[in-house]
Amino acid sequence: MGLFSNLPPEVSVYEVSARDGLQNEAVTVATTRKVRMIDALVDAGLSRIEISSFVSPKWVPQLADAEEVVRLMPRREGVTFSALCPNVRGLERAKASGIEEIGVFISGSETHNLKNVNKSTVDTLAVFSDVIGPAVEAGIKVRGYVSTVWGCPFEGEVDPKKSLAIAEQLLAEGCYQVSLGDTIGVGTPVQTRDIIELFLASVPPEAVALHLHDTRGTALANVLVGLEMGIRTFDAAVAGLGGCPYAPGAAGNLATEDLVYTLNGMGIETGIDLEKLWRAGQVAEAIIGRDLPGKVHRAGVRSLRS
Amino acid sequence: MGLFSNLPPEVSVYEVSARDGLQNEAVTVATTRKVRMIDALVDAGLSRIEISSFVSPKWVPQLADAEEVVRLMPRREGVTFSALCPNVRGLERAKASGIEEIGVFISGSETHNLKNVNKSTVDTLAVFSDVIGPAVEAGIKVRGYVSTVWGCPFEGEVDPKKSLAIAEQLLAEGCYQVSLGDTIGVGTPVQTRDIIELFLASVPPEAVALHLHDTRGTALANVLVGLEMGIRTFDAAVAGLGGCPYAPGAAGNLATEDLVYTLNGMGIETGIDLEKLWRAGQVAEAIIGRDLPGKVHRAGVRSLRS
Repeated sequence: MGLFSNLPPEVSVYEVSARDGLQNEAVTVATTRKVRMIDALVDAGLSRIEISSFVSPKWVPQLADAEEVVRLMPRREGVTFSALCPNVRGLERAKASGIEEIGVFISGSETHNLKNVNKSTVDTLAVFSDVIGPAVEAGIKVRGYVSTVWGCPFEGEVDPKKSLAIAEQLLAEGCYQVSLGDTIGVGTPVQTRDIIELFLASVPPEAVALHLHDTRGTALANVLVGLEMGIRTFDAAVAGLGGCPYAPGAAGNLATEDLVYTLNGMGIETGIDLEKLWRAGQVAEAIIGRDLPGKVHRAGVRSLRS
Repeated sequence: MGLFSNLPPEVSVYEVSARDGLQNEAVTVATTRKVRMIDALVDAGLSRIEISSFVSPKWVPQLADAEEVVRLMPRREGVTFSALCPNVRGLERAKASGIEEIGVFISGSETHNLKNVNKSTVDTLAVFSDVIGPAVEAGIKVRGYVSTVWGCPFEGEVDPKKSLAIAEQLLAEGCYQVSLGDTIGVGTPVQTRDIIELFLASVPPEAVALHLHDTRGTALANVLVGLEMGIRTFDAAVAGLGGCPYAPGAAGNLATEDLVYTLNGMGIETGIDLEKLWRAGQVAEAIIGRDLPGKVHRAGVRSLRS
């Protein structure tokens, strides 16, 4: 067979609930509650956590308290916090906050990028030239996000070669890793194989992460493809936070619990305690005040006998 | 890579919503509404549909109208209807109804079998000796179900060798296919590979189907493993019907829409029209009167741009 003959002993889970999740909620969560949720995630063993965004509060009022979240989060050895950073103004805020990592974001689709940040991808990359290098010089790690790699809500299919060219530029500028986003959760496994194959022809596997939304239930199947092909970092959000508040019931990010449950079952270490993670999901649900869609979140973990 | 180098041009989807789904609902659905749902499934292109069960109405009152459902369903060329059949009394009812296929069911876990049918697996197999052969002689196809192959709600892990021995006996008695059930949805991909590897060492792949519940979100990932290993029949339920009515929000069967969406994306033909299937899921939700969990069901199919 050969199937799963090359599984890694461990993979890295990148937790995005406090940013990608909360920015899509209709409600703005109080700062102290965000801190409680993030602390529960740290307690569960997550060591890479995106905790907010230094975008303008006018764009994303849900995350207007970025500095306060960074200030209030207790630091722990081995845990990296990050926040999104769209431009030089964001970098200044990031530096002042003392955060150790930032994320820059751009879309593989021209239309989506325009709608998202009101700039062409060329202009966005030009902005990043004043962000990535200076951040790295200031001792701040930079992660890149390329969204809509699997498909765009406005353009439909997008050519992954465009996403690859963007990713290569982000890495050349100093990003240590680029996270490829299936932003609208349309990806299926053969497509995922083709995209990863294209990227790995010119980018080392450790520089690639998958950021999969579970809108059509395919996220874990696509993770499996990534695992088989050498990808070792996967983004996820506790309890499947994310999605669109204007489409009730629509699924958000791949749920961290579902990912960790699956990896555990495959004998792959993540450093995460699934039961504590499940409790962090309960905290998330309580502070957000709506049912969250993660499957393990809903089924429970205390006993697998149900 | 080799990944997906051996995908089939088509796979067979076995629809179980009208039995495995409805028997787990707290409400009993009116016969005419069941017929409307099944008809919508036929209209979507499903050609193998389990429509009821000839178990005692005392055990499963939700399916007490089995004869009436069989009688009312318009027959179409190329569409096979089936119903579960626990014993000789059930076979008599099946024969009288004119249904073309029956399913016999047994558990790989001794405790689960005892709780489910109040018999040991040995005694259950003895009952089947008076069902399978006589059914085949009467021109009725017989499919076998072995449940709890991945894990048991009472025993925890179960030895798949026991499920294999049962499956081999069912096939020897005359079943044309055995459907292996992850009844409580605990399966993860390496385990699935190991189980399939064990089965395919002594059973031809066309005699094996996978019946996966999506309780922890792993069903599609496990389908992918099955596809890679040569399995060509997958059970599913429209909109993810099934699950336990006593655990609100708990996921049921793998949703047919999610399966078909994924297979379509992989270029694998099923004969099913996804948009019509989605509409059948709307019918199912309307007649059952609760939100159903399928992901594509909730996200919609008309536009993939959301």
